Amino acid sequence: MPQFLDATAPDFDAAFAALLSAKREDNVDVDDVVAGIIADVRNRGDQAVIELTARFDRLELTPETLRFSQDEIEALIAQVPAHERDALELAAARIRDYHARQMPQDQSWTDAQGATLGWRWTPVSAAGLYVPGGLASYPSSVLMNAIPAKVAGVERLAIVVPTPDGVANPLVLLAARIAGVDEIYRIGGAQAIAALAYGTETISPVDKITGPGNAFVAAAKRRVFGKVGIDMIAGPSEILVIADGDNDPDWLALDLLSQAEHDESAQSILITDSPAMARAVAAAVERYLTTLERREIAAASWRDFGAIITVPDLDTAAALSNRVAPEHLELCVADADALSDKITHAGAIFLGAWTPEAIGDYVGGPNHVLPTARSARFSSGLSVMDFVKRTTLARMTPGALAAIGAAAETLAISEGLEAHGLSVRARLNRLNEG
Amino acid sequence: MPQFLDATAPDFDAAFAALLSAKREDNVDVDDVVAGIIADVRNRGDQAVIELTARFDRLELTPETLRFSQDEIEALIAQVPAHERDALELAAARIRDYHARQMPQDQSWTDAQGATLGWRWTPVSAAGLYVPGGLASYPSSVLMNAIPAKVAGVERLAIVVPTPDGVANPLVLLAARIAGVDEIYRIGGAQAIAALAYGTETISPVDKITGPGNAFVAAAKRRVFGKVGIDMIAGPSEILVIADGDNDPDWLALDLLSQAEHDESAQSILITDSPAMARAVAAAVERYLTTLERREIAAASWRDFGAIITVPDLDTAAALSNRVAPEHLELCVADADALSDKITHAGAIFLGAWTPEAIGDYVGGPNHVLPTARSARFSSGLSVMDFVKRTTLARMTPGALAAIGAAAETLAISEGLEAHGLSVRARLNRLNEG
Repeated sequence: MPQFLDATAPDFDAAFAALLSAKREDNVDVDDVVAGIIADVRNRGDQAVIELTARFDRLELTPETLRFSQDEIEALIAQVPAHERDALELAAARIRDYHARQMPQDQSWTDAQGATLGWRWTPVSAAGLYVPGGLASYPSSVLMNAIPAKVAGVERLAIVVPTPDGVANPLVLLAARIAGVDEIYRIGGAQAIAALAYGTETISPVDKITGPGNAFVAAAKRRVFGKVGIDMIAGPSEILVIADGDNDPDWLALDLLSQAEHDESAQSILITDSPAMARAVAAAVERYLTTLERREIAAASWRDFGAIITVPDLDTAAALSNRVAPEHLELCVADADALSDKITHAGAIFLGAWTPEAIGDYVGGPNHVLPTARSARFSSGLSVMDFVKRTTLARMTPGALAAIGAAAETLAISEGLEAHGLSVRARLNRLNEG
Repeated sequence: MPQFLDATAPDFDAAFAALLSAKREDNVDVDDVVAGIIADVRNRGDQAVIELTARFDRLELTPETLRFSQDEIEALIAQVPAHERDALELAAARIRDYHARQMPQDQSWTDAQGATLGWRWTPVSAAGLYVPGGLASYPSSVLMNAIPAKVAGVERLAIVVPTPDGVANPLVLLAARIAGVDEIYRIGGAQAIAALAYGTETISPVDKITGPGNAFVAAAKRRVFGKVGIDMIAGPSEILVIADGDNDPDWLALDLLSQAEHDESAQSILITDSPAMARAVAAAVERYLTTLERREIAAASWRDFGAIITVPDLDTAAALSNRVAPEHLELCVADADALSDKITHAGAIFLGAWTPEAIGDYVGGPNHVLPTARSARFSSGLSVMDFVKRTTLARMTPGALAAIGAAAETLAISEGLEAHGLSVRARLNRLNEG
């Protein structure tokens, strides 16, 4: 059973604070191992990657077979049933449409002093996408990472995906093909991150690395950050459902369980102004937990980190949700738009009971890579913005420099930076001579 | 003397690669010390901060004097001469105008299936800005960090600035006042970062921390990342000047020296298609190096990391610049706009010889916090975007769910996530009943 909390109870604040700060992840310290692997790949390139892949994935590769060949990809993709292919293509089209609207605009203007100012966006040249192997090898994540990169205009997009014992996931390869990925390597772990960041004889280095992974992958991404850009380090998944009394408890139970089934560290929270709904959802969850395939995982998550909170009104629900800053927020209430206006921190909002969170995982259009562990207070989900960067532009005329140059000189002198001031003064002197 | 390189020489590629990979920073390993300081502040709050400030800054504080009082601020600000105040206000107004244009737009639309999609931007609630003490305590950096935060709508903006031996910089306090900063604490180092990230009895925690600092501050920012957001970890400053033969060598020399004077690890590079200009600028730099106040620092930077590269044409200059991905790029050529179009990676571009880089440091309008160490390949300068975050929005209608729900179910099943599929199926079943 999860925690039951009543927002009007005297001990609620302490209990809610404990819920917020519950440590859901044991950060295994793999940093030394990862440092060694990265150094090895930097020193020995392909050979290190090949040896590490033999050791960790029980797979013998050569420099020629590190990368999937076109023929292999075709043969594997041919195994995908038509209805799965159609579903991936529908998802890809919707994700592409949504993300195309995220492309930021260049700007340029001339101000009253005659200075022309602005900025310009350009894509990252080369990006690498990590895709986990085995059970967590999700084709939907390939679409969610690769499509924003391609929409942004990334010229070269490489995937690394481990294939333990040589077993590849045809759907992952098909998703990569649909998303326009250029290169696919059958390697994983810290060695794959090192190869993408520093390059080997066979793999050219990239400028940015995104995608989820285990503790080794996360530690490697932290280590290569600076040499390349990285996306956020994602934690266990979370959902918060705010529901009024007019809901189908089965729907809400399944929504809560769809996060709980991801991972024993996932967190599912229901906040409702209806004690009857609270009880009904709790009962429905217990019922599904007897039959779900992943019931052991889901039950552990629900037991350890789940919570059902009753509140006197929906304003209180919004305020509590803002303290959680959840990755996924469902608003299953009569006026979801009005409640949404009170939400200040959330990765993604799903409006109304007809919008289950799972729609957002696959075919809604918005990205499913979202900030976890309360980081929606300061960060956003993956988007086209992660694959572009801004160059600011400034052009002074002699007149503009005459208008604002002396102020720059004053500030340079006040900061003790003489050459800064002289570089402006030399130009102003020319104007005075003229 | 700096390196002289000729892009047409047979050994150029090796020499240029060496220039690109020159290690300009010794990363002192202070991580263990910093981990201890952070743990101490988390455990003992104010008392730890007070003891560490006594030890490192030789300053005795109490919980009551950690924060500058309004009266102290007024008294210090009153010392600032009018021309410096005017210069700061001009700079602030221009920076505010520029950054106001960066506010991203919310979007919402309804697609052909009837799904309403979009996103919404909201500000970070509370931000902290680190300002170095002593010589590197730059009021311009206060404006550059604080104004984007306030433009973004950050409600609570706190500054930490160490005051070794109790000496405060009145210009820093004035810049903070002009920028609308809400709280100023006279603490620094890793203890100040820990206090901002975790809070103490006196200092409320923030959600995002920006601003430059020494190795201890940088290590502390890396450690608290995840608990709060951080900006980039800035390296030594850099300038690349592309110039044709029609320039005043003194101007270019001063522009190169205005980076070199920052730091012995700074890097200044001139690329020109005019061997005569190359010689003239080199001579001018040597001349200024005999008189500049900061000539020892500038000479060391120019000697160890400076370079003058001659190229057969400006296209080659652009290609080399893109490999450098410089923090600051000056285009002192006849057609700067045309050359700018060939630049794919740069933090900030200064167009034409009338736009010295120092203008951008103070009064141009664009931000002077820019990506260093080749990170302009994948990242951007500080902006309003660093203080806002995006929440994605999705609302399905029954019709929209009927149109795309089955595809989501198919993908959920293919990924082995049964509850995901059931959460969609339960709703589709309702439609079929209806």
